[in-house]
Amino acid sequence: MAEIRKRELDKLRDMRREYVKYLNLNPIQRGGILTPEARKAVEEWADGYSVCDFCDGVLESIKKPPIDEFIHETLPRFVEADEVRLTHGAREAKFMVMHAICEPGSTIVVDSNAHYSTHVAAERNKLHVVEVENNSYPEYRVNVEAYADRIDEVNKKTGKLPSLALITFPDGNYGNLPDAKRVADICSEYNVPLLVNAAYAIGRMPVSLRDLGADFIVGSGHKSMASSGPIGLLGVRKSWSDSVFRKSMEYRNKDVEMLGCGPRGLPLITLMASFPAVYERVQRWDMEVKNARFFIKRIEDINGIQQLGIKPTEHDLNFLETNVFYAISKKHRNGRFFLYRELKKRDIIGVKPGLTKNFKLSTYGFNKDELKRIIDAFKEIAMLK
Amino acid sequence: MAEIRKRELDKLRDMRREYVKYLNLNPIQRGGILTPEARKAVEEWADGYSVCDFCDGVLESIKKPPIDEFIHETLPRFVEADEVRLTHGAREAKFMVMHAICEPGSTIVVDSNAHYSTHVAAERNKLHVVEVENNSYPEYRVNVEAYADRIDEVNKKTGKLPSLALITFPDGNYGNLPDAKRVADICSEYNVPLLVNAAYAIGRMPVSLRDLGADFIVGSGHKSMASSGPIGLLGVRKSWSDSVFRKSMEYRNKDVEMLGCGPRGLPLITLMASFPAVYERVQRWDMEVKNARFFIKRIEDINGIQQLGIKPTEHDLNFLETNVFYAISKKHRNGRFFLYRELKKRDIIGVKPGLTKNFKLSTYGFNKDELKRIIDAFKEIAMLK
Repeated sequence: MAEIRKRELDKLRDMRREYVKYLNLNPIQRGGILTPEARKAVEEWADGYSVCDFCDGVLESIKKPPIDEFIHETLPRFVEADEVRLTHGAREAKFMVMHAICEPGSTIVVDSNAHYSTHVAAERNKLHVVEVENNSYPEYRVNVEAYADRIDEVNKKTGKLPSLALITFPDGNYGNLPDAKRVADICSEYNVPLLVNAAYAIGRMPVSLRDLGADFIVGSGHKSMASSGPIGLLGVRKSWSDSVFRKSMEYRNKDVEMLGCGPRGLPLITLMASFPAVYERVQRWDMEVKNARFFIKRIEDINGIQQLGIKPTEHDLNFLETNVFYAISKKHRNGRFFLYRELKKRDIIGVKPGLTKNFKLSTYGFNKDELKRIIDAFKEIAMLK
Repeated sequence: MAEIRKRELDKLRDMRREYVKYLNLNPIQRGGILTPEARKAVEEWADGYSVCDFCDGVLESIKKPPIDEFIHETLPRFVEADEVRLTHGAREAKFMVMHAICEPGSTIVVDSNAHYSTHVAAERNKLHVVEVENNSYPEYRVNVEAYADRIDEVNKKTGKLPSLALITFPDGNYGNLPDAKRVADICSEYNVPLLVNAAYAIGRMPVSLRDLGADFIVGSGHKSMASSGPIGLLGVRKSWSDSVFRKSMEYRNKDVEMLGCGPRGLPLITLMASFPAVYERVQRWDMEVKNARFFIKRIEDINGIQQLGIKPTEHDLNFLETNVFYAISKKHRNGRFFLYRELKKRDIIGVKPGLTKNFKLSTYGFNKDELKRIIDAFKEIAMLK
C-alpha cells in the first residue's frame, strides 16, 4: 500500500448529489428512482452482504426475506416466463444467454436500434453481428419482416442459422416498440431462439414472454424497476433452463453462468421492496403513455421542435429534434452549453451538457404539474436570443 | 403480466433485517459493514443509476463525484497496481481475467484452499483446474513449493504451460496467508501469470501487487471495503492492461470485458465514501491480528475448542473445531441447532444454524468489550448439558 494524499481522500468526504431534488429528464434515471418502501429498506440492508445473513449456500433459496418465492413465483408471473434469475443488469443477462448458447464465431441477428451493450456483449462472446435495418429518419422503425432476410443471408453465407436473434423492446433512443411478436413468429419458423431486451419495458409496462412468444426476456432493476443498481433479470422458456441455468459439475447447488450467486446485497432488497409499487404502476401504463403524448404535443407547439420515432409515441422515452435550440446556440454566449445551463437554472437536469440539436428524454413518473413546468421551461428557453 | 396474489406482495412489505444490531460473527459480514460516511451517502445516492447523472459515456471518467481520480490514482496506489478497474465482485474479476487471457480447454493451477467461485469461474470459462495441495488437518497450509510441480505436470501432460495460476490470500476457511511472493517467484520463472485473490485482504490489511510480484490482484468491496454489494476491484500489471481492459472495436470508449461500464450505482459511491476510513483502518491491521489472537487464546481455554489453520493466527478470519459443542448437541433438546439458538439468545449471530462440530468466524472490527461478550457467551454455552 502506497501513501494516499490527504487532498485525494478529502474529495471522497461528503460527496453530494446536489441535483437530487431537480426534475431529471434522463431516461436512465426516471424508472430507477427508489420508492419510499425501498428507501426505508435501505436503512437496514445497505451493509455489504446483508441478504446473506441466513443463506444456506443458495441465495435464491433464502426464505426470509422471501427471496425464494420472489424469484421462483412472483417474478415468473410478472413477466410470464417459466423461470427467472437475477443478474447484475440487462447487459449481463444478454451476455449470459449468449455465453450459454452461442458458439464463439457464430452470428447473431439484432435490430439496428439495439443498445451498445448488446454489441459489446456479442463482442465479448466473439460473435458476429448482423443488423436488421430501420427505415431511418424520422421514424427509425425497425423492419421486422427483414429478420427473415437476415436469417436467410446468415444461413447462406455461413452454412448455419444464427445462434440467436435479439430485438430491443423498446429501444433506448426513440422509445419505438417494435412488433416483437412478429419477430418471434419469424424466428420460431427458422428455429432461431429470440431474446427480447425489455430493459425499458419491464417495470414500466406490462410484458409477457409467453404472449410475445420469444425464448428469453431481459429486464433492468435500476433502469425500470425502482431499484438501486446494479441488478437485472433474465426470464426464460423452460426448454432453455437447463443450459442457461445449468449447475456446476463440482458444486451442485451453484449456477455456472451466475458464478454461484447473482446480485448479493442491497439491489436485490430494493428490487423486492419496490415490487408491490412497481406491480401497481405497471397497471397505470396507459396514463404514462397519455402523459407522454400530452407532453410531446405541447412541446411540438414550439416552432422548431419535433419528436422523432414512431408517432404518436407509445412510450415515455422520446427523442426530440430541436432545431430551435441549435439555432440559439449559434448566437448564445454560452454556446452549445446554453441549453443545459438554462434548464439547470429552472431546476431541470438530464439533458447532456452540450446537446442542443437533438436529445432524448423521459416523462416517466412526472405528474401533470411537473410536466407543465418542463413544458414552460422549454417554451421560455425557445424564446431566448 | 399475470396476476400476483396480495399475500405474495404483502410479504415484500416492510422486510426487516431483525439482527442488524446483533454481534455478527459471519466473516463475509464483518468487513462489509458500512461506515457512517457511506451510510450518509446512501441517502442521496441510492436511486438506480444515480452516479450516471453526469456521465459522458465512460463511468470511470466522471470527475464529480471524483470517480476518475479514485479509479485511476487512488486505488492503484492503494493496492500498488499499475491499473485498477471495478467489477461486480471478486468472482466477477476472476472470471474477467480468465475470460480475457485463458483459452477454453487450457489448464489453470490453483491452491486447494481456493474459494468455490474460483472453480465456478474456471468452469464457466471451460478451463481445467489442477490443485496445489495443502498439508491437511489441522493446519491446511498450502504447499507453495508444489506450484512448480503442478506447472511441470500440466506442461508435460498437455504440452502447454498453465494459462494462469491463482493463489487465495488469505483463504476463506482458515484465514491462512500463504507465501504469495514465493508463488509469484515460481510462476514468474515459468512465465505463468499469477492472480492473487485478496478478497479477504484488500480493505483489511495492507496489500501490494508490486511487492507480491504477481500479475493480477482481486478485491471485494462488500466483503472487505465497507461497501454496499455487489462491487469488487481488479488490479493489474501494466503489461496485461491492453488485453484485460481492451476497448470495444466498435465502441471505442467501452471496455469489452466490463460490457461497457462496470458497477454503476450505489456500491461505487459507498466504496468511495468509505475509502478514507478504510485507508485508515488498514493501517491498524496489527491491532486486528492482536485482537484475533487474544480471542483465539481465550476461546482455546475452553476445553474442547481449538483453532485450525496456521498458528498463531495471522488474520481475523479463523476456523474453530468445537468438539465440546458437538458433544452437547448430542444430548441437547434442540439438537444440532442448540448452538445457533444459544448464541442468538445472547444477541450473537453468524454461525450457520445446525453447525456445532466446527465453523468459521471473524473478529474483524469488534472492540475488546464485544470480544469479551462473545468469549463469555462461548464459555457459558460450553457449560450447558
